[in-house]
Amino acid sequence: MSGAPEAERLARVALSRVGEPGSLLLTEEVGRLGGQGAYARLLAGCSPLSDDVAARMQKVDPAAELQRAADLGIRFVVPGDDEWPTVLDDLAFAPALHERGGVPVGLWARGPGRMDEMLAHAVAVVGSRSATSYGSQLAGDIAAKVAGIGYTVVSGAAIGIDYHAHRGALAVGGPTVAVLACGADRAYPEKHASLIDRVARTGLVVSEAPLGGAAMRVRFLARNRLIAGMSRGTVVVEAAVRSGALNTASWTNGLGRTLMGVPGPVNSATSEGVHQLIRSRGALLVTKGTEVLEAVGPVGSFLLPEPRGEEHPRDRLSVTDRQVLDAVPIAQAVVTEKIVRSAGVRPQWVRQALDRLLAAGLVECVDGAWRAVRDDSRG
Amino acid sequence: MSGAPEAERLARVALSRVGEPGSLLLTEEVGRLGGQGAYARLLAGCSPLSDDVAARMQKVDPAAELQRAADLGIRFVVPGDDEWPTVLDDLAFAPALHERGGVPVGLWARGPGRMDEMLAHAVAVVGSRSATSYGSQLAGDIAAKVAGIGYTVVSGAAIGIDYHAHRGALAVGGPTVAVLACGADRAYPEKHASLIDRVARTGLVVSEAPLGGAAMRVRFLARNRLIAGMSRGTVVVEAAVRSGALNTASWTNGLGRTLMGVPGPVNSATSEGVHQLIRSRGALLVTKGTEVLEAVGPVGSFLLPEPRGEEHPRDRLSVTDRQVLDAVPIAQAVVTEKIVRSAGVRPQWVRQALDRLLAAGLVECVDGAWRAVRDDSRG
Repeated sequence: MSGAPEAERLARVALSRVGEPGSLLLTEEVGRLGGQGAYARLLAGCSPLSDDVAARMQKVDPAAELQRAADLGIRFVVPGDDEWPTVLDDLAFAPALHERGGVPVGLWARGPGRMDEMLAHAVAVVGSRSATSYGSQLAGDIAAKVAGIGYTVVSGAAIGIDYHAHRGALAVGGPTVAVLACGADRAYPEKHASLIDRVARTGLVVSEAPLGGAAMRVRFLARNRLIAGMSRGTVVVEAAVRSGALNTASWTNGLGRTLMGVPGPVNSATSEGVHQLIRSRGALLVTKGTEVLEAVGPVGSFLLPEPRGEEHPRDRLSVTDRQVLDAVPIAQAVVTEKIVRSAGVRPQWVRQALDRLLAAGLVECVDGAWRAVRDDSRG
Repeated sequence: MSGAPEAERLARVALSRVGEPGSLLLTEEVGRLGGQGAYARLLAGCSPLSDDVAARMQKVDPAAELQRAADLGIRFVVPGDDEWPTVLDDLAFAPALHERGGVPVGLWARGPGRMDEMLAHAVAVVGSRSATSYGSQLAGDIAAKVAGIGYTVVSGAAIGIDYHAHRGALAVGGPTVAVLACGADRAYPEKHASLIDRVARTGLVVSEAPLGGAAMRVRFLARNRLIAGMSRGTVVVEAAVRSGALNTASWTNGLGRTLMGVPGPVNSATSEGVHQLIRSRGALLVTKGTEVLEAVGPVGSFLLPEPRGEEHPRDRLSVTDRQVLDAVPIAQAVVTEKIVRSAGVRPQWVRQALDRLLAAGLVECVDGAWRAVRDDSRG
């Protein structure tokens, strides 16, 4: 695969090694000067990045770092590579959150998926680590539906919703990308090592953190921006009011991408954050995978009919028959003359209509009087 | 109480007796000509209302009808009365639905409540007759909250959500109005006769249908417009996709009033209609009574803080301490020097911060290395 010049890649490897994922100083410097420019300034000791970083820079051997990664089956994808997902370039224009932001210097990637292709049509499915069985089931169902259509499910491999999102995609043999806060050679949480390996076998495991990097809060915050940035839209399945998934939601809004939320019982703490997103942060309420596809797909390509429930025999009646039926009382039976009066339909038509309604089982005749058969659409 | 001229009231009693609730022909004729004008045209046989109606008109004795109502403790409230709820006049401008619409000719009312006062601040709480225990509980809770503040709970006395809405208001001694599809002297459903009587003892039972009138589908549709028209906003608690509550929702939107919906589990059929209202008909998602009050109250009077969850010890940290904490790995412990590197904070500050974080129980020290104590807000 053709790609970025080797010198640029090596400069970015070095920057990835010493800089913190999503550090604004770093991403802005690289955004302005490119990898080599930022690297040269650092080596020259005249970078706004700290002296400390510059000192450590001397010890970094990017070529050896790349080789070490290759030995682990990991590559470093940078802007300019064919594989670079240009969808991430929007991050240059999204407002910073928690002093993190910007286009990543590069992404460490493990797995056979081509990053640009996998992220051409992707949806993030994220949510609470303290997921309920309700949320877990839904995350899996939604992921299976969108991945079954060919959309890539992006998530963070965390316990709870993330886990079930990846699993749902894998279950249908669909594409999925796990974005980690630790290095791409590691697994956080450790108990998800086998899930992460499974994702790496068919899709991609991606990280902005250097090899061996540990999971820490700043890196989760930086990671969430990548999940949002890689996806056309983000579905939040369950989230308490302090869930990290709400951080991903903020990135989604900041990027102008489609934010979606799956509601749940109002007395469930893990749905409270989602309800808040729908109430006051513009999230679209979604209840199933097809609604997610309708929201993120090309306009009109996944248009759904509004749910209408089963067709009712009433729906097939002529206008006159329906007018007559609507005028037949529900509780006590009345004589035909009373129905004529309420329906505003000619007497002989009313009599014929009542016969048809009787045959259709929509009215009953009791001692010569008429009563409507119960129907649940009155309110 | 002063009010409309007696001749106008009697004309409207007669029209109420022979016309169908919400009949567009009737409400438009009365809107144009007033009660007496429309009545005179009918008696003269030159009304667009049917000949049949005109013929029956001759047999109506409005004064006797009013007396019969008075004997039952029922009055007939018409535009021009002090008690007339002018909030209903907006119905003249709302689009017709199912060929029903317009300002009612008059309203038969039973109960001590003054209609204009009770409807000065009112919220409709409606929903499915096939309510679940989840929806029933919520309808009661929301009604109790808004009625406890003094807002009148308007509903339709139907089984399911309506029942629990009235009960919730009554339970806190709050104001509630039941709008019936049958005559105000009757009870539909019959099993709610005692509920309806209870409402009539402290609030109001109201109907557009004449005394003795039976419940029929057209009257439910006409009744729903009154529920929406009497209220600043309508809360739909549960509704299947064919629920009559969606008809009330349509009236609410047509009137430009505030439509609200309480979400529920996405796999519950009785929440499907509500989710649809939130998804595509602009309903505001609400989860509790205070959110309803915030939506319908005067701007700013019921402003709620966004739910934030309990305060976390992190929230009270200085910026520096938080930066240091964010850079402490979650899984494996690391030495201080590594944290200095990730945090971008001066080494001596990092050491002091770690001591404070240790004292606060936010980090642990393991063999001279540091690890963050788990926290659920990472995502």
